[in-house]
Amino acid sequence: MSVAMEVVKGTGENLIWSRMRQEASAALHEEPLLAGVLQSTVLDQPDLGSAFAYRLAHRLGGGDLSRLAVRDIFMSALRARPSLRSAFTDDLTAIYERDPTCRRFLDPFLYYKGLAALEAYRVAHWLWSDGRTTLALNFQSRISEVFQADIHPAARIGSGVFIDHATAVVIGETAVVADDVSILQSVTLGGNGKDRGDRHPKIGRGVLLSVGAKVLGNIKVGEGARVAAAAVVLHDVPPFSTVAGVPAKVIGHSSTQRPAFSMDQMFGDGI
Amino acid sequence: MSVAMEVVKGTGENLIWSRMRQEASAALHEEPLLAGVLQSTVLDQPDLGSAFAYRLAHRLGGGDLSRLAVRDIFMSALRARPSLRSAFTDDLTAIYERDPTCRRFLDPFLYYKGLAALEAYRVAHWLWSDGRTTLALNFQSRISEVFQADIHPAARIGSGVFIDHATAVVIGETAVVADDVSILQSVTLGGNGKDRGDRHPKIGRGVLLSVGAKVLGNIKVGEGARVAAAAVVLHDVPPFSTVAGVPAKVIGHSSTQRPAFSMDQMFGDGI
Amino acid sequence: MSVAMEVVKGTGENLIWSRMRQEASAALHEEPLLAGVLQSTVLDQPDLGSAFAYRLAHRLGGGDLSRLAVRDIFMSALRARPSLRSAFTDDLTAIYERDPTCRRFLDPFLYYKGLAALEAYRVAHWLWSDGRTTLALNFQSRISEVFQADIHPAARIGSGVFIDHATAVVIGETAVVADDVSILQSVTLGGNGKDRGDRHPKIGRGVLLSVGAKVLGNIKVGEGARVAAAAVVLHDVPPFSTVAGVPAKVIGHSSTQRPAFSMDQMFGDGI
Amino acid sequence: MSVAMEVVKGTGENLIWSRMRQEASAALHEEPLLAGVLQSTVLDQPDLGSAFAYRLAHRLGGGDLSRLAVRDIFMSALRARPSLRSAFTDDLTAIYERDPTCRRFLDPFLYYKGLAALEAYRVAHWLWSDGRTTLALNFQSRISEVFQADIHPAARIGSGVFIDHATAVVIGETAVVADDVSILQSVTLGGNGKDRGDRHPKIGRGVLLSVGAKVLGNIKVGEGARVAAAAVVLHDVPPFSTVAGVPAKVIGHSSTQRPAFSMDQMFGDGI
Amino acid sequence: MSVAMEVVKGTGENLIWSRMRQEASAALHEEPLLAGVLQSTVLDQPDLGSAFAYRLAHRLGGGDLSRLAVRDIFMSALRARPSLRSAFTDDLTAIYERDPTCRRFLDPFLYYKGLAALEAYRVAHWLWSDGRTTLALNFQSRISEVFQADIHPAARIGSGVFIDHATAVVIGETAVVADDVSILQSVTLGGNGKDRGDRHPKIGRGVLLSVGAKVLGNIKVGEGARVAAAAVVLHDVPPFSTVAGVPAKVIGHSSTQRPAFSMDQMFGDGI
Amino acid sequence: MSVAMEVVKGTGENLIWSRMRQEASAALHEEPLLAGVLQSTVLDQPDLGSAFAYRLAHRLGGGDLSRLAVRDIFMSALRARPSLRSAFTDDLTAIYERDPTCRRFLDPFLYYKGLAALEAYRVAHWLWSDGRTTLALNFQSRISEVFQADIHPAARIGSGVFIDHATAVVIGETAVVADDVSILQSVTLGGNGKDRGDRHPKIGRGVLLSVGAKVLGNIKVGEGARVAAAAVVLHDVPPFSTVAGVPAKVIGHSSTQRPAFSMDQMFGDGI
Repeated sequence: MSVAMEVVKGTGENLIWSRMRQEASAALHEEPLLAGVLQSTVLDQPDLGSAFAYRLAHRLGGGDLSRLAVRDIFMSALRARPSLRSAFTDDLTAIYERDPTCRRFLDPFLYYKGLAALEAYRVAHWLWSDGRTTLALNFQSRISEVFQADIHPAARIGSGVFIDHATAVVIGETAVVADDVSILQSVTLGGNGKDRGDRHPKIGRGVLLSVGAKVLGNIKVGEGARVAAAAVVLHDVPPFSTVAGVPAKVIGHSSTQRPAFSMDQMFGDGI
Repeated sequence: MSVAMEVVKGTGENLIWSRMRQEASAALHEEPLLAGVLQSTVLDQPDLGSAFAYRLAHRLGGGDLSRLAVRDIFMSALRARPSLRSAFTDDLTAIYERDPTCRRFLDPFLYYKGLAALEAYRVAHWLWSDGRTTLALNFQSRISEVFQADIHPAARIGSGVFIDHATAVVIGETAVVADDVSILQSVTLGGNGKDRGDRHPKIGRGVLLSVGAKVLGNIKVGEGARVAAAAVVLHDVPPFSTVAGVPAKVIGHSSTQRPAFSMDQMFGDGI
Repeated sequence: MSVAMEVVKGTGENLIWSRMRQEASAALHEEPLLAGVLQSTVLDQPDLGSAFAYRLAHRLGGGDLSRLAVRDIFMSALRARPSLRSAFTDDLTAIYERDPTCRRFLDPFLYYKGLAALEAYRVAHWLWSDGRTTLALNFQSRISEVFQADIHPAARIGSGVFIDHATAVVIGETAVVADDVSILQSVTLGGNGKDRGDRHPKIGRGVLLSVGAKVLGNIKVGEGARVAAAAVVLHDVPPFSTVAGVPAKVIGHSSTQRPAFSMDQMFGDGI
Repeated sequence: MSVAMEVVKGTGENLIWSRMRQEASAALHEEPLLAGVLQSTVLDQPDLGSAFAYRLAHRLGGGDLSRLAVRDIFMSALRARPSLRSAFTDDLTAIYERDPTCRRFLDPFLYYKGLAALEAYRVAHWLWSDGRTTLALNFQSRISEVFQADIHPAARIGSGVFIDHATAVVIGETAVVADDVSILQSVTLGGNGKDRGDRHPKIGRGVLLSVGAKVLGNIKVGEGARVAAAAVVLHDVPPFSTVAGVPAKVIGHSSTQRPAFSMDQMFGDGI
Repeated sequence: MSVAMEVVKGTGENLIWSRMRQEASAALHEEPLLAGVLQSTVLDQPDLGSAFAYRLAHRLGGGDLSRLAVRDIFMSALRARPSLRSAFTDDLTAIYERDPTCRRFLDPFLYYKGLAALEAYRVAHWLWSDGRTTLALNFQSRISEVFQADIHPAARIGSGVFIDHATAVVIGETAVVADDVSILQSVTLGGNGKDRGDRHPKIGRGVLLSVGAKVLGNIKVGEGARVAAAAVVLHDVPPFSTVAGVPAKVIGHSSTQRPAFSMDQMFGDGI
Repeated sequence: MSVAMEVVKGTGENLIWSRMRQEASAALHEEPLLAGVLQSTVLDQPDLGSAFAYRLAHRLGGGDLSRLAVRDIFMSALRARPSLRSAFTDDLTAIYERDPTCRRFLDPFLYYKGLAALEAYRVAHWLWSDGRTTLALNFQSRISEVFQADIHPAARIGSGVFIDHATAVVIGETAVVADDVSILQSVTLGGNGKDRGDRHPKIGRGVLLSVGAKVLGNIKVGEGARVAAAAVVLHDVPPFSTVAGVPAKVIGHSSTQRPAFSMDQMFGDGI
């Protein structure tokens, strides 16, 4: 992470966009079969936000809504909520920094379904906030069908969030996820059937939710906490602690302030 | 649940259909982008069964079978097995009653992939029972591709069943699921590799299978039992008990006769 | 397994191909709705490899690449790597032998998304090894979208491997899977966030990875080991042992040399 | 024509439907690649009208309207206007009797774009008459795109009409075509730019409009008249006469009462 | 034409755009099945040019280029050649004024393939002029496939041009068409096989080319001339004259300065 | 024609294929949006025949038959009838030599619908000759839908044939077209309604059928004859003569032995 992160630190949309265009240009010459995709999706787009709109419209369109219509909804969202642009950038950067498999910006942008699901959720959330609930739920449904991550449009999710692989991820209606969280495949932020109304978890900043973790109910997972793989969390988790097990218990401290950055899914030093 | 349930109690297909048409009509005026979908799928259909046939054909067609052909298979099933209509109604009602996120009938009907997978399975089950195994398996495959729930067409599933989110759900060939069961994402009703022939679980009435529960082998989960999140169940579960853990053990009684209705995924009073 | 296995033992591509053609021919007459699919995909193809190319192009094409283009990539792979043919055969045979639900070769060939994901991964792996990384990642992305199994094209996977159901399976970049392994739904072979570079598990020959097992980090799961359902494996697993629990511990010996063949997901004799 | 016509004389929808099903059944066994099409389009349909609805929905859907929606519009038309069924039958019979290339009912039903355009026009005409002008024009547009025959939905066209090949046929808004007319490719029934309101031709019973004939303005082509190939008709044509030339002049009598039946495009005895 | 024309006279893009939006809004409420199309194509677009880009991308995309890519090419053309906007407006106005069948702007905009082919040609012409010949020819091919009008992208066509029905229209590489021309179905502006280089016709302002007229070779059809239906024109045509016949001869004067406006396809007073 | 023709003379499939690959390679670098199409359709194909199969499958597939299935039928035809390869080459060469608009082989190969319709007809003719009439007629129907040329699969057409633009061309069941013929848009080779059985025209070698010509009945158009634009030919045409008019009469000699090569559509020296 070190060198790459140096380069990226402090970068905004423009620098990443510039880098991604270079990557696309190089890839275009190496792989003519994908040249049309790279040209139209990246090189012919004016900025990163528009490129996301193009790409996600391509992947999500064709259900109840045409690709053209989906793209216009994305562009409307970008105009109405300019902050979406920085969220797109931060989420993309988060992957680049945290995922050792990821060696260029182009790959998560084009391919990672976790990123795709997250950015499409952000647009669905705007629709929901704007009172267009039927359309917002349509987005949720389509995202769930194509990317297999079921994120309710009313959930609130911060930026710099990394949803890795995304398959079988479920995030409920009243869940709140702070900035800089990492969420792996098969994680559920669900209700517990007891709480009504505000009934889903609140995940603090920098938390790591390891593969298969289930967090249920209106509980708090404190800042910098680490939820181990397959943990079933039913009660509040103190900040900067590690919880593990079925049901989950505190087994130690987090080894870092931002477990989401290191993605360390081990249970603890001695385990 | 209380008020809504009052309204719904005793309703049959007609009342729900009437309600859903009103919902569709209101949504049509609020969201013109989806008006064509709402008009053709709901308002132009003569009854709930036909509407399901239309919607699921739209979502499942286009693989090996065209949407037109899938719809005709659905309509044939409805003619041959009129009881499918009440199963559709009961399943839809189950969601409306049990899922606090669900505030109108229209949303699960249009969007929930658990409901979609279940109703399409019901038609595949009819094909299987009718000896059309190749087509039944084709349905299973397509359902698994689109909705990510892999339900063998030979399995037997009662009515009033709620499959929430549905992603990564697997239900094996000889599994039996009674009425009024709730099944959450990533639940498996699988074989254990030891039993042959009749080798999958039998789930009793009103059982709640919490998120990520795995029930393996030809075992019985008794009526009204509650299987906690991420539990791995390898042995019979007594009626009205709660089991939890890896492997699962009895940790208490169910707090209600029908845990599936309350969807309480907590492990127990003290946990 | 006994009788069927006798028949299959020692069979190569030709015998299976011949059997599958007979199955297709019978199915064609029973189910005219699928006759075109059976005729074009099986009966009009010259050999099993070409049939796989046809079928997987049909299922995977239409994203960034047309079905025609995907098929040509498959055919190029078969020409460049003739050993792919025997891998296709061995994987198909593995399902036929191990899955009691499977009663003919035709069904996994046409329908099983685990097999589809695995064979498409094999082609993506060839692309990756050939330096065509952008295209290889495109395949990974499309496989993950359609079949919900996210297998990095750089991973190395032996033959005779059975990925059952496949939903939510994740196999990381530096993972190695030996021959004759069985992998069930929701299994992860992931990084642990600590190891860098070579950071994913190495799975020995004949290992059974039961439903929901998570194996994390550059650790070894020894030959003939059995990883129980929902186990979270963070350390090396001795050969021919059974591990279970969160985190996983050794709880006994494997009952057979190749647990992958018997698919016994029980935790052990006494459990 | 003689023998075939004997067979067909007096047949109604049922006899033709029965014949066509036999043809489809035979074709299904000869050509498995098309078996799915034949099974779903013909053999699984309850009657000829429903089969037309299925086939034309397949060919016309996918523009602004899905195939499912187009089919429902066809079925609504058949319910609202039962006489459409006999028009479908008469038009199909007309081809069978008049086109020496046509040796079974199945081929025009499946393939002839003139028949397809005509029957789809009939539904568009019903929409127009019903006040649904936007949808009627949508049908016209789609028919014109797919079948290359541009028939205004307000035009009135009798039954037993044969539009051969159909390419570049244009029939204007106030045109009237009586029963038993034959119209070949590139025929125009157009305005002349002078007449307003009711400004298109009225074509009498049994008229033959040979290839490339242009009939312009609110003029009458009398019963049993024959318009020669490439004729440009600007004035009324007497019944049972033959007109030819640019501009067209009367050059003789029709040799039969119904030139549309014999399809004789010659200019006259001496020419 | 009178009243409507009064209204339209002097209108620019804005007025027409405003009118068309009102028409779309009214149609949306009358025909919910098309509401999504009307909303996304007209009501959600910022101006007439963008609406054309959306609509034509929908109709032309899906061949070698996706709808998203086609739309971006249209938008690029509008940015690079702002005069395209007035050409779109003038062509749309021309139909509204000249076609008695046309009662609102919405219908030609959505449906008329002559208008669609012409505006798509204009973009292809920009591509050609910009040196992107392969892409320009791709557009020509796709237009010819979908709208059946084969217009070479190098041809030069003025504004206020009305191509009615469009089927089988052919306009060659070096053809020039001035402003305010009307062209009916099956018209050819072709080479004669003798001239090389600049070898196609030059059509003067306000000319009417009636149905099926063929104009061949590098000849001039003078301003305000009228070419009768099915005429074959091989030599220069004097301004304000009427030519007719095979081959065409002068048979009189035009009755108006702009025969294209009145669309009078008669041969002359006495014929 | 002179220089280009020199280059081409004596070339076979290999030389043209080599030239076209160079053209495709150059175009690929100029137009990345089409690079995938050029790479997969031309550069990744082993020979011209396979490239045609790929391209035409792309354009014709997706109706009743998938693109994959159409391509296999093309490849089967090439194996069964190797002479199809030289016909493809000769037809492509014919366009290159005769059409002054055509400056490279790539354009007609990719785009010209006349060439596409002709080569697809050749495969349909093979199907017809092979007794697969239902499939042959399916091809005819699809060709007519997509390319607007309606060529009966039983017709016999020589090689080196150029169908220009192709819109509204109709060629009947018993028509015979010799080598080296040129056919322009809206040409009909039709029946006359009198002849039965063998009832369509026989067109001699090197004949030019100008735009809109209609040749009706079992008549002979002699070698090297020239049929003028819009002519209606009802009787035999002497070799090396020019016929014109409605109905057509001999008006002179052809000016060359092969009018099809010079494409001179003029009526004669004095006209």
